[in-house]
Amino acid sequence: MNFSCNKYLSNKWFNDLICKSNLAESSKIRGCLIFKPYGLEIWNKIKNKLNYLIKKTGHENYYFPLLISSADLNKESNHIKGFFRECALVTHSGFNIKNNKILLDRKYKLKTELIIRPTSEAIIWNALKKWLTSSIKLPILLNQWSNIIRWELRPRFLLRNSEFLLQEGHTIHSSKQEALSHSIKILNLYKDFIEKILSIPVIKGKKTKTEKFAGANTTFCLESVLLDGKALQIATSHFLGQNFSKSFDVKYYKKNGTYKHPWGTSWGISTRLIGALVFTHSDKYGLILPPKIAPIQIVIISIIKKLEDKQILEKLVKKIRVFFKKKQIRCFYDNRKQYHPGWKFNEYDIKGIPIRITIGKNEIQKGLIELFRRDNRKKKHIKIRTIKKKITYFLKNIQNNIFLKALFLKNKFTKTIDDYKKFKQIFRSSGGLIYAHWDGMKESENQIKEDTSASIICIPSKTKSNFGHCIYSKNLSKQRVIFAKCY
Amino acid sequence: MNFSCNKYLSNKWFNDLICKSNLAESSKIRGCLIFKPYGLEIWNKIKNKLNYLIKKTGHENYYFPLLISSADLNKESNHIKGFFRECALVTHSGFNIKNNKILLDRKYKLKTELIIRPTSEAIIWNALKKWLTSSIKLPILLNQWSNIIRWELRPRFLLRNSEFLLQEGHTIHSSKQEALSHSIKILNLYKDFIEKILSIPVIKGKKTKTEKFAGANTTFCLESVLLDGKALQIATSHFLGQNFSKSFDVKYYKKNGTYKHPWGTSWGISTRLIGALVFTHSDKYGLILPPKIAPIQIVIISIIKKLEDKQILEKLVKKIRVFFKKKQIRCFYDNRKQYHPGWKFNEYDIKGIPIRITIGKNEIQKGLIELFRRDNRKKKHIKIRTIKKKITYFLKNIQNNIFLKALFLKNKFTKTIDDYKKFKQIFRSSGGLIYAHWDGMKESENQIKEDTSASIICIPSKTKSNFGHCIYSKNLSKQRVIFAKCY
Repeated sequence: MNFSCNKYLSNKWFNDLICKSNLAESSKIRGCLIFKPYGLEIWNKIKNKLNYLIKKTGHENYYFPLLISSADLNKESNHIKGFFRECALVTHSGFNIKNNKILLDRKYKLKTELIIRPTSEAIIWNALKKWLTSSIKLPILLNQWSNIIRWELRPRFLLRNSEFLLQEGHTIHSSKQEALSHSIKILNLYKDFIEKILSIPVIKGKKTKTEKFAGANTTFCLESVLLDGKALQIATSHFLGQNFSKSFDVKYYKKNGTYKHPWGTSWGISTRLIGALVFTHSDKYGLILPPKIAPIQIVIISIIKKLEDKQILEKLVKKIRVFFKKKQIRCFYDNRKQYHPGWKFNEYDIKGIPIRITIGKNEIQKGLIELFRRDNRKKKHIKIRTIKKKITYFLKNIQNNIFLKALFLKNKFTKTIDDYKKFKQIFRSSGGLIYAHWDGMKESENQIKEDTSASIICIPSKTKSNFGHCIYSKNLSKQRVIFAKCY
Repeated sequence: MNFSCNKYLSNKWFNDLICKSNLAESSKIRGCLIFKPYGLEIWNKIKNKLNYLIKKTGHENYYFPLLISSADLNKESNHIKGFFRECALVTHSGFNIKNNKILLDRKYKLKTELIIRPTSEAIIWNALKKWLTSSIKLPILLNQWSNIIRWELRPRFLLRNSEFLLQEGHTIHSSKQEALSHSIKILNLYKDFIEKILSIPVIKGKKTKTEKFAGANTTFCLESVLLDGKALQIATSHFLGQNFSKSFDVKYYKKNGTYKHPWGTSWGISTRLIGALVFTHSDKYGLILPPKIAPIQIVIISIIKKLEDKQILEKLVKKIRVFFKKKQIRCFYDNRKQYHPGWKFNEYDIKGIPIRITIGKNEIQKGLIELFRRDNRKKKHIKIRTIKKKITYFLKNIQNNIFLKALFLKNKFTKTIDDYKKFKQIFRSSGGLIYAHWDGMKESENQIKEDTSASIICIPSKTKSNFGHCIYSKNLSKQRVIFAKCY
């Protein structure tokens, strides 16, 4: 295997792990990944589970075009500012070839440049204009699973890629309050999903004006802390106000015959979640996947050599697998002959399979199997006849334990600081999430970022204290915010 | 509703039907569609069922980047010729804005132009070069679900779009025979799927040199005939020979220490299949969906007005739905009050729901329900207690009946002709699939196309006769081929 997967990444461990575990690898196109079967399978698990929750809350799936006219992207004046420096611009609908070289040709030049969607607000609000006839009732609740391009200047493997796979929701409401509530409702849906399914504890909050989504009134966010103490924006939900409805002149008709600009929300998660899984739960042996999202929850490996023992083994494995299948437990029986058990143990360690069952001759004779938990690396012999009860318990316990470990890490990295010298010192050494007072001024925010490279990752929903003094300016502050270096 | 969905399409009925039934609508970007929930749900059904079959035959899902370097696309000299006139060229990674206008800027100009994938051979064979180390065993069997852009000069709603959703398989083999067999195996898999699940009868064959995929040695294909007598290429499977392995210098290592260029295949189906469903099974009332692919198989509508009757009704409907759910029959109970039953009947006619169950007071008193089959528009009263047996029978029968109707149509449109005058006459009037002799020469093929607008849609696998004389040149011909006008 070739582990030197990517030149532009400094964190060799992280990159190697992603390649070794066969999640993804870099491609020839800068910042764009090849998702391998194991990585794509995790994404599909996320997609299926989240899609169910999104549909359950009344949203329907659409697929809007990949290309947006640059004129449309330019309609919402703040929106365009967020994307024009980092987007893929399509200028031609073909080209010429001369002496085996690609030649641009005026013949193929487009009248209006097109942009590969960096997000789909512009194309969706464009369509809405036609849809909002007098017979349409609000809200309209849309969802889309798509691929998007944002030309990252500093791409980071799975955390910040130029192309990534995205879930993006877009909704249109007849009142400000309803839209605002909806964006918070979705934030809570994401929180539940990420904490319960991915076992990643998150902090709920909102972005400062500097950090919010281009085109939003408010950006609500979920932030997590990674193994290296840096923060990761893991999901966002935007309250768009009437910004897009006004820019695209979208109106809905009221009962009294008048019309009004509706309020909007948009919200999304992406394949960055896979990067978050890797960078939250791994250890020096490899990935550790939460059972609820693991493509393989249990792997069975035999260490039996004699032929007569093998027949007993095969019978036993068959019985176990039938039971797992009934319980919808995803099990893989690795009976490849060309690999030694030790090689297999290593492979499943790297891939983060939650439970490994090893069956040997001695164990069978005693009616036992050996069960290895990937999360705490503890081995245990259990009686074969108790497997049904115990496996369900272990899967639940591992899911929970992984979450608690991550929560412990988050708490370890979380500090409350009031002294700017100490604050700067922390960001020179361990990093982490620092609760500190801030006066609400852009100038202070920028200066702190210049001094420490840390930004305000969010204004948290729950805070420990109220009034105080800005850690930088000493001006009055209404609440603590969270500073961190982030991806 | 707005039915005038698209300006560039001449077939108003077809376009209106797609918009009315809420499958898709046109977008502002020429040739690109917005897939609405109903259309996308059909695609997801196709995707899930086909994905299962593709995985079952040993293929794994990958996701390769959207963008291909133009230099890579240019490596296989025939491949590039198929796409350079109709592709989306990305030339910049950002732009400037001045006086609210988009301005191109040299600062953002890419060193190498990128192309939005029109198909993924180039990017996949590029990756393979790295993968085929000495420890890798062939075959490698890849699959991808993606979106692609081919800049159609004459886009046609759902049949020929600039952006469409695609399933594309790519495989690499150590022998010519294995690759060739694999491409035929997949063609048969597609045939089974399209005939059994989509109820569309197809003809198996291969393309002429003029019509084959750019970069393939042989293009095997499935062709169907639409309601208007035109042909549609519904699936293709390409035997790529060593064309890509040689162009991309991909080699596999043999046991004896030498290396060799492997053989390749690629094959795909797309959202065009939804267009095929519409244009094969519809009637003047709307779509007719085969039960196996219909997002809703049965709709229940009540025509009860009195409140006391409604309670009995609700109980009955609940019972029926519990049974359907158990049997995994997709049922929708339309209890919207604001719409009259007649309005609903019309809506589900357009949407092509296979079975409509109507429940009225009279029926309940007699222990009956009214069952309406969308395919033959026949109504029947059946006893409530026999519903369990009958519904399964009806769903199967409808699936089969739709196929037979399409087969009848195909046969009606199929003719064997030996006289060129008559041949030309047919393509001036009814059209259809014409079996005629052809001498294998490009010149004859082109002249016939010029005279009639009909092309050779395929050299069929099964033919009715052997030697004869070319319908155009009168030269000796080895077998009949199929001529048709096509989309």
